[in-house]
Amino acid sequence: MSKITVSDYLVQELNKLGIKDFFGLPGDYNFNILSSIENNENTNWIGCTNELNAGYAADGYARINGYGALVTTFGVGELSAINAVAGSFAENIPVFKIVGVPATKYIEQNTLLHHNFSNPDYYAFQRAYANVVEATAFLDCKNAKKEIDRMIQIFIREKRPVYLAIPVDICKMEIENNPEIEKPASNQKNLAEAAEHALNLIKTSDFPVILADVLAKRFNALDEMKKFANTSGLPICTLLMGKSMFDEDNEMYLGTYLGSYDNLYAYKYVNNSDCVISIGTIISDLNTFSFDIKFNPSQYINIQGTYTIIENKKYDNVLMKDMIAELCKKIEKRHILIEHDERGFEKVDSPTDANLRADYIYPRLQEFFKPGDIIFSETGLVKFGIAPMSLPQDCILNNQVLWGSIGWATPAAFGAAIADKNRRVVLITGEGAHQLTAQEVSTIMRHNLNMVIIVLNNSGYTIERILSDDPMDKFNDIANWNYSKLPSVFEGNCWSACVHTEAELDEILKQTEIEQKDRLCYIELFTEMMDVPYLTKRVVKKLRDKSGASVCQVR
Amino acid sequence: MSKITVSDYLVQELNKLGIKDFFGLPGDYNFNILSSIENNENTNWIGCTNELNAGYAADGYARINGYGALVTTFGVGELSAINAVAGSFAENIPVFKIVGVPATKYIEQNTLLHHNFSNPDYYAFQRAYANVVEATAFLDCKNAKKEIDRMIQIFIREKRPVYLAIPVDICKMEIENNPEIEKPASNQKNLAEAAEHALNLIKTSDFPVILADVLAKRFNALDEMKKFANTSGLPICTLLMGKSMFDEDNEMYLGTYLGSYDNLYAYKYVNNSDCVISIGTIISDLNTFSFDIKFNPSQYINIQGTYTIIENKKYDNVLMKDMIAELCKKIEKRHILIEHDERGFEKVDSPTDANLRADYIYPRLQEFFKPGDIIFSETGLVKFGIAPMSLPQDCILNNQVLWGSIGWATPAAFGAAIADKNRRVVLITGEGAHQLTAQEVSTIMRHNLNMVIIVLNNSGYTIERILSDDPMDKFNDIANWNYSKLPSVFEGNCWSACVHTEAELDEILKQTEIEQKDRLCYIELFTEMMDVPYLTKRVVKKLRDKSGASVCQVR
Repeated sequence: MSKITVSDYLVQELNKLGIKDFFGLPGDYNFNILSSIENNENTNWIGCTNELNAGYAADGYARINGYGALVTTFGVGELSAINAVAGSFAENIPVFKIVGVPATKYIEQNTLLHHNFSNPDYYAFQRAYANVVEATAFLDCKNAKKEIDRMIQIFIREKRPVYLAIPVDICKMEIENNPEIEKPASNQKNLAEAAEHALNLIKTSDFPVILADVLAKRFNALDEMKKFANTSGLPICTLLMGKSMFDEDNEMYLGTYLGSYDNLYAYKYVNNSDCVISIGTIISDLNTFSFDIKFNPSQYINIQGTYTIIENKKYDNVLMKDMIAELCKKIEKRHILIEHDERGFEKVDSPTDANLRADYIYPRLQEFFKPGDIIFSETGLVKFGIAPMSLPQDCILNNQVLWGSIGWATPAAFGAAIADKNRRVVLITGEGAHQLTAQEVSTIMRHNLNMVIIVLNNSGYTIERILSDDPMDKFNDIANWNYSKLPSVFEGNCWSACVHTEAELDEILKQTEIEQKDRLCYIELFTEMMDVPYLTKRVVKKLRDKSGASVCQVR
Repeated sequence: MSKITVSDYLVQELNKLGIKDFFGLPGDYNFNILSSIENNENTNWIGCTNELNAGYAADGYARINGYGALVTTFGVGELSAINAVAGSFAENIPVFKIVGVPATKYIEQNTLLHHNFSNPDYYAFQRAYANVVEATAFLDCKNAKKEIDRMIQIFIREKRPVYLAIPVDICKMEIENNPEIEKPASNQKNLAEAAEHALNLIKTSDFPVILADVLAKRFNALDEMKKFANTSGLPICTLLMGKSMFDEDNEMYLGTYLGSYDNLYAYKYVNNSDCVISIGTIISDLNTFSFDIKFNPSQYINIQGTYTIIENKKYDNVLMKDMIAELCKKIEKRHILIEHDERGFEKVDSPTDANLRADYIYPRLQEFFKPGDIIFSETGLVKFGIAPMSLPQDCILNNQVLWGSIGWATPAAFGAAIADKNRRVVLITGEGAHQLTAQEVSTIMRHNLNMVIIVLNNSGYTIERILSDDPMDKFNDIANWNYSKLPSVFEGNCWSACVHTEAELDEILKQTEIEQKDRLCYIELFTEMMDVPYLTKRVVKKLRDKSGASVCQVR
């Protein structure tokens, strides 16, 4: 059996999962890990401007690549990244969190080194992380090989972050290069029973419908899901987080579920169904338009990553991929006719010299998007603007509707661009959110990524103005930036522009098609402070009508 | 008894501690808290660009003001700030961490709202925080008043962060406006015994010396410490974190403790003493120049914030202020002659056209500093450059030698400038660290703070190049920025400059004296990649000689 150092082994095994790029920042406790990454000919180190951004970038990378990894230093680095990792945990993005920690002897002696408390506590940060990841491990000279294998096994199975701390000296320790990592597998008995139960329920129902969401993608079951939709002939609806997962031109596609606020045919179809086949759904407030959904998925068939619930009976240890594949084997094809409204926005009228408003921006962006685009939609207003769109084939829309951490989208889009250099990456962000993580634009330029960044400047946190008692509350104001000048601070090739009117947007987006071939395009759009997409207006109106008070009261 | 709402009460009580400015970001779960801050005529809301920066700003504010406060939203906001709060915990900076969380009914029903995990866990973030603060509380309709009082009491006594979660509805709940917050007090018996023990030890020793450090400031014992030094006539030395706490022109001042690397008179005096009176010392690696100190403070007299240890005997519940005041009452004055080397750098020669080097920069900055300045020194090389300086009277030097989180200094300096608008605030940061938090320059400009920001551009993480095996490891490279252009992206009044040579620095610093009266001065200094202060060279050389390997191995 050949030998290998601990950090070389870790990098080798993560690379086998398809991780080529590791995100993070250096620190004097993680140099050995970074050297293993630099020295492995299949892997690259992608340094970011700060650890939170690195965590978001690893998240964006994993959304496209399937798995991602993040390396920080002890204490200061890992804590700065914890919100990003918690977001990956919330949204089932498998990001492997690695931290370099001081050498074993200092831990054993509880020596007061930098990045620690005056009463040193070497395990404090692992304990903090234990609340926001699937599992944690802290390597020592005895457990190193076994714990790495265990963490990777959990990582693959749960598709969620795990946390691994490696002391400086342990990185260099040699272990046997003998991976013992079991692939996840379903319990065959449970799988057969669950499939039979589901097939019976579908067979005896009059209006079955598929409600697909983003966890189908996270658990690598997109192919199975599509096959199931085609084999069964059932209509399919996607939730907001799962938007773009299913070909929007497919005749059985009901569109995006927008509650009772729009796309009413889908709303009624799903809520009147006597057998909803939920695949990887997340039933959160914003993903369901404030719980505007009239059933609990587990009443019918609720297929999740590692289990299935049918009529409230839980089948443990049933993998989503396997479950759907079983259904495909025996499902009988139905021939159902569905109607639906015209999908997406109507083609925009000829642009005028009017100031930009959401009513023009999002329909125009719908035309701008092209097949294969990777789109990142920031938390806030943008998700409501994009929700009713019809997206071209093979687009990948990314949002963070559950975790909703403002600032996420800028570095996450960067990570996605690293993951797939053959697709165009388009980021749409509000300017309030952009400020949190804007320095990552410099890393985008450092890597010569010809992305498109669209920054919506509406003079503050507009979504929060809408939600708070008084839209003019000063706490929703922010510092004014000349966003379009930001790229000029950074070294690299960027074309930037400011847009105030419909005609300018039309022109600039046409120009972007050309400029974007060679360089980053960074476009600042100005709208009035209280201009919002129509879906936002409808949702907020209903919340206010319901509560008779501020929206934040009812939250 | 009059009634008051929970969030109004919290703001009122924190304001009584001298907190006028609350830092943070809005979010839909904390609007009620922010409204209480906006509505209290004695308090202001200071919105920052992101939560980590807000946490650092609150830390910097508390360093100058005594106490600080930070408000974020649930999950995403609080986790983004956790590294800043952990740093405040490590360095005993009392920052009161407040988080707005969803309404009680959603917590009770475990409803899946945004900013939570798909299996909701409303207490996950409190549990994470419990590892990095002194105490935590989560308010409900029964415990609100009592828990606020308890948190403030701990906050005052321990001078460390506490964590308070307030559901949206609890903010508006009325409680009695009847604060029951006990002031910290010493156990009189323990105090008397400790003082007697200490006085006896001092009396019977031949070479007593005071070793003062930053916790004397944190525990508000600076006046007592100075009085003790003067009353006793004993020589006094400060550790690096405590630099500037004691008048550097005082004849009994031995200077800053720099291990055996410099200021050898102080090194020998302290290590040969038969009675070291330690006041608020932090015996960490970097604060002692890699443990280049030959005794444990607790062998002699070790006065800490809430206890004292003398000859390894611990006296609990003895407050630092009280302990030193007791010593002052009975100490006999000695008349000791001390020698010491010339303090600080020699006056710089006439500047030449040579490229800038540390050997010129820090002596020149020594001349630039003036009485009353608040100086923020970033982690990395800068602390070693400033360590040997002689600082003018009444300067306040701030560093983060223990926690050492790069990026801290930029927002922290901003917080300090908010705390004291009558002093000049000078920030000195490496460019690598500056990138992590640079957007806070926009908030500095938004508030028209005429600070001085000096950014040292040495093409990457030079301190880490010095510490790693290969200075040219690619992971220590960073994106290139034109730092001096950064302020032009932000709205506000700023004068910026680039400096390459000694003569330019001399000229620009003279000009800064003028420009700084009206506006922010932002100065970028260029040095060669491997140019470092002489103290860094000496420390690293010794570490390498000792280990025969890379420095990171011995850490």
